[in-house]
Amino acid sequence: MKTEFDFIRYIKKSFGLRAVGDDCAVLPKDETLDLLVTADLLVENVDFRLEWTKPEDLGHKALAVSLSDIAAMGGTPVWAMLTLGIPEKLWETDFVKRFYEGWNDLAAELKVELVGGDISRSPDRFVVDSIVGGDVPKGRAILRSGAKVNDVICVSGTLGAAAAGLRLFEKADHHQSSEPQYERLIERQLRPKPRVELGRWLLNNEIASSMIDLSDGLSSDIHHICELSGVGAELDASLLPIDEDVKNSFEKEEALPLALNGGEDFELLFTVPKEKLSSLENTDVSEIGIVTEDIGVVRLNDGDSTIDLQPSGYRHF
Amino acid sequence: MKTEFDFIRYIKKSFGLRAVGDDCAVLPKDETLDLLVTADLLVENVDFRLEWTKPEDLGHKALAVSLSDIAAMGGTPVWAMLTLGIPEKLWETDFVKRFYEGWNDLAAELKVELVGGDISRSPDRFVVDSIVGGDVPKGRAILRSGAKVNDVICVSGTLGAAAAGLRLFEKADHHQSSEPQYERLIERQLRPKPRVELGRWLLNNEIASSMIDLSDGLSSDIHHICELSGVGAELDASLLPIDEDVKNSFEKEEALPLALNGGEDFELLFTVPKEKLSSLENTDVSEIGIVTEDIGVVRLNDGDSTIDLQPSGYRHF
Repeated sequence: MKTEFDFIRYIKKSFGLRAVGDDCAVLPKDETLDLLVTADLLVENVDFRLEWTKPEDLGHKALAVSLSDIAAMGGTPVWAMLTLGIPEKLWETDFVKRFYEGWNDLAAELKVELVGGDISRSPDRFVVDSIVGGDVPKGRAILRSGAKVNDVICVSGTLGAAAAGLRLFEKADHHQSSEPQYERLIERQLRPKPRVELGRWLLNNEIASSMIDLSDGLSSDIHHICELSGVGAELDASLLPIDEDVKNSFEKEEALPLALNGGEDFELLFTVPKEKLSSLENTDVSEIGIVTEDIGVVRLNDGDSTIDLQPSGYRHF
Repeated sequence: MKTEFDFIRYIKKSFGLRAVGDDCAVLPKDETLDLLVTADLLVENVDFRLEWTKPEDLGHKALAVSLSDIAAMGGTPVWAMLTLGIPEKLWETDFVKRFYEGWNDLAAELKVELVGGDISRSPDRFVVDSIVGGDVPKGRAILRSGAKVNDVICVSGTLGAAAAGLRLFEKADHHQSSEPQYERLIERQLRPKPRVELGRWLLNNEIASSMIDLSDGLSSDIHHICELSGVGAELDASLLPIDEDVKNSFEKEEALPLALNGGEDFELLFTVPKEKLSSLENTDVSEIGIVTEDIGVVRLNDGDSTIDLQPSGYRHF
């Protein structure tokens, strides 16, 4: 058993699973809609640290990461469930109440209804499983597997800010400084904004041929698209929309890896047939490369050099 | 903040949640069906112990507890997701593979398809969130809230066996004995059989007015029905179908509490209008009492004495 991705492939093959492997499961709902469902587990001291995270922020983020999976299929989130494992010492405080308040503020904004879940005691760590269900027009969910050779690779927003915020926490630099760009990077780490509206717009206007959200990190997530689509990719480092505050707060040799491997930006990475590119004018979407026929190979051109970009984003195993 | 049930009531009221509080969330699906969804969190050393539980058994049980929630609404399970938090030391063994095999054996039996989930590292304990989705005829899910005064209270199968199996583990008596009744009690603890077929039959024949599965324990679960239905209950101890192996292995003063408070039998507890009782002939269902108008009060008649039965089943907080 090697990485978690190897294991998922093994499980999928062993048990003949068809619906596993995209951001959400896509299930038949009615005549006009499919049901999307996604689950995201967050474990204390692996996926978050309570010394950095207010309970309201954690509630927000738990929902945001799952909404981002719905966004990555072009769907509309509708309902959610929350499963919590709670240590006794947190149960006795207002932690869980504040967690739900943060969760609920984001849910109310997107009209997502909490419909159930489970509560268990967890001896030492807070764990959250965030489950979200949504709708997508029948047969039209944007999959990871739809990229075609010569499609243009696009990404929304800016890259590296969430990872930079985490780096600041790890360095504890943010205690030494109240510079506004630091605050903004930390906000991007703690309170990601899922791109639900953009995802739905890309679907409604039939712009994206494949899509994924940036959770593990660009270098890993582009490999997921390449693997599922049976294609390769060529990216241009000069085109990457590295966040300005990341550029201003870190040296280039630190900023580029943050943008490539940092993860948790929860922006959308997608591919677009060339003839549809003009629709993306006046959006915050950047063109960063092109789909190639070299299956599974991702090349990064950086000035005069070209490297084979390995999937170096976050992985649990 | 008192018990977990108080907290769920608080959350439900604060955020105006309509769908929370039954065994499953009931959501509109299409013209003829509703969607049922349930999530159940199992945490190592709280809900199970690996020294007693083979990985295959744990996989079976994780799915069984959620299938039991679908059964308790009269539904048909269709798809499932599995979210796992895995300690590094287990990841390096065949534990997770064997867990999936046990899960899959039960899933295949009931034609439930694994459609997604999540895998995370968990520093010290194995945690499982089991999510199951199912179908139920539109508007006909059997809720906890439908019990009417003078309905007869019924329970399927036998009571106390799962808790007795746990007691044997705790006493480590099973090592001293290979008596077949001990093996059976342990099997009831480790590999519960969800009553999906019975639940669906009760719905299709419009027999049950309210229903819940016995997960926390009869004394707690009957209170959930009473609270949601705005009724009371009167039970007769002599009618309780205490498992024969429990009676043979434990003294009466131990056997009755196991049956009342033990939990995890995953049998169905339901109420039946008197005119429909005859349908239950030739089933393994027992009549154990009657619905009364004393809201929230559960009386247990035991020979000459009557006690107010408190909810003494399992709770996490």
